[in-house]
Amino acid sequence: MPDLQRLFRREQPVFTALLREHVAAMPPLARPVATHVLAAGGKRLRPLLTLLVGRSLGSRRQDLYLLGTAVEMLHAASLLHDDILDNALLRRGRPAAHTLFGVPPVILAGDAMLGKALLLVSSLQDPRLTACVAEAVMHTAEGEIDEYANLRNPDLSQDEYLRIITGKTAWVLRASCELGALSAKGGEDSVAAAADFGLHLGIAFQMVDDALDFSPASRTGKPCGGDLREGKITPPLLLYLNSLPREEQAAFRTAFRDNALGAEELDAVTAAVFSRGFARRTRSLADSHLEKARAALALFPAGDGRLLLEKVVDFVRDREL
Amino acid sequence: MPDLQRLFRREQPVFTALLREHVAAMPPLARPVATHVLAAGGKRLRPLLTLLVGRSLGSRRQDLYLLGTAVEMLHAASLLHDDILDNALLRRGRPAAHTLFGVPPVILAGDAMLGKALLLVSSLQDPRLTACVAEAVMHTAEGEIDEYANLRNPDLSQDEYLRIITGKTAWVLRASCELGALSAKGGEDSVAAAADFGLHLGIAFQMVDDALDFSPASRTGKPCGGDLREGKITPPLLLYLNSLPREEQAAFRTAFRDNALGAEELDAVTAAVFSRGFARRTRSLADSHLEKARAALALFPAGDGRLLLEKVVDFVRDREL
Repeated sequence: MPDLQRLFRREQPVFTALLREHVAAMPPLARPVATHVLAAGGKRLRPLLTLLVGRSLGSRRQDLYLLGTAVEMLHAASLLHDDILDNALLRRGRPAAHTLFGVPPVILAGDAMLGKALLLVSSLQDPRLTACVAEAVMHTAEGEIDEYANLRNPDLSQDEYLRIITGKTAWVLRASCELGALSAKGGEDSVAAAADFGLHLGIAFQMVDDALDFSPASRTGKPCGGDLREGKITPPLLLYLNSLPREEQAAFRTAFRDNALGAEELDAVTAAVFSRGFARRTRSLADSHLEKARAALALFPAGDGRLLLEKVVDFVRDREL
Repeated sequence: MPDLQRLFRREQPVFTALLREHVAAMPPLARPVATHVLAAGGKRLRPLLTLLVGRSLGSRRQDLYLLGTAVEMLHAASLLHDDILDNALLRRGRPAAHTLFGVPPVILAGDAMLGKALLLVSSLQDPRLTACVAEAVMHTAEGEIDEYANLRNPDLSQDEYLRIITGKTAWVLRASCELGALSAKGGEDSVAAAADFGLHLGIAFQMVDDALDFSPASRTGKPCGGDLREGKITPPLLLYLNSLPREEQAAFRTAFRDNALGAEELDAVTAAVFSRGFARRTRSLADSHLEKARAALALFPAGDGRLLLEKVVDFVRDREL
């Protein structure tokens, strides 16, 4: 029985070493910022997806390591820009880069990392790979503008939320999987299945993230209720809001829009969202996307690779950090 | 005799229309920012270089228009990020994008434009083209970090200045020319000559820009003495500084470093730099790079294309805006 945790333990240090090596080949001034954001660790989920999808479909090992490294570099670049947008002070429990290096160097180091990621992908000499990464850069940025434009929008709908997270989060997971399939030189069907798998896995991943944001026991390294404080409407809050009596709902919407909720009220709402089960119910919403991801996997050839990808689906469902 | 001004008048609207078309195909939220920064106009010098270099070396017309559009998109993306870094209020006489749209959407729209530029280049299915653009993204960002890291550094040397402008400005002009040569499927020699031409043209372009910054009659749309006010040391100021008696020099360095120069003093220094001829002497420094650019052109086949590129060299030498 293939073991996902063992795979994580074995491959994470490989990607960390590769990232270090490629950062060392970047121009010198961008390096400290790149090193900082990459050293914060993380699960290396995206490169592992590239690796697993590629392996399942028969891709070359070395290409997959290079693509995975590029994908993680891209992801880290978007974290740098995203933390500025969110005014985040922490990232994975450590100071956000812009609080240490200042905003302009972090904007630019993010650009340098984008450039480096695309350079790595270009080296494989397959224009479909570069196009896939370029699309992901564009749509991720769009999703983040979308999120920003809807901060403190108390009337955000479920569909708008889905559109936002599809851009800001799911597109890169989709690209991670698509790159693995493209490098396997598979047919259109397998590339589409890989993209579909990554897309729904990514949507579910973000929904679970948004549920964890209200979970006091989560080990994400972010303070509980951060999204609410930052003015982001996510499913746990939407569900809570819809459960309120009409008048209370209207009052909350106004206060949320005007950023007029006091610290105590924010804490009380955060606690209520969790205790009334809306974080758990958000995880059920995520389950429907995990089912779609699982269905896309049915088009993959049976074997250890596919079994491990199924375990990734379980991992996203069950994760607490 | 080929006429550069006529070429400008004919091709600028072509690129403007192409840019508009490709922006319209971008995701919707990034569009207003992209439209704003591109509508500010500009000379479209970079796409014209791609076009002229490519034509001189026998490239396909449609590929060159696409590459030129991508290069201008890339340049505009870097202007968006650069204006945030500089805290610039104006760009070509119009409000800088971040003053209208806010910093986060402008960071992200810049990313989306980078992604779009790379997508356009990927569509030509030549990995050397994407690698060239990716390198340019990385080195431009590095040059801008370099400039930022050296703001108010009163001991900046001429070599350090050259390193900064090679990154922040010359790399993209170099890439503009290299892309033209690469798309002509020329040999390594012609690609190297095109890159060398663009590099030195780019260095000279920035030096002329820095001279114009102290020229009251310039029509750049930027306030005179802006670099000095922003804490940037450029050759006109370096030359002025070196002309001062030792004690005065030390006092100026300290005040410059500590941003302790008053408005009147700044105006007086700006006027002195110009009246004592240091802007003009900076243009002489630029001339040596223009000679190198001209020498690189000697490797190009004789013809109208090369004649026009020689006129671009004159244009950079003589420009007043």
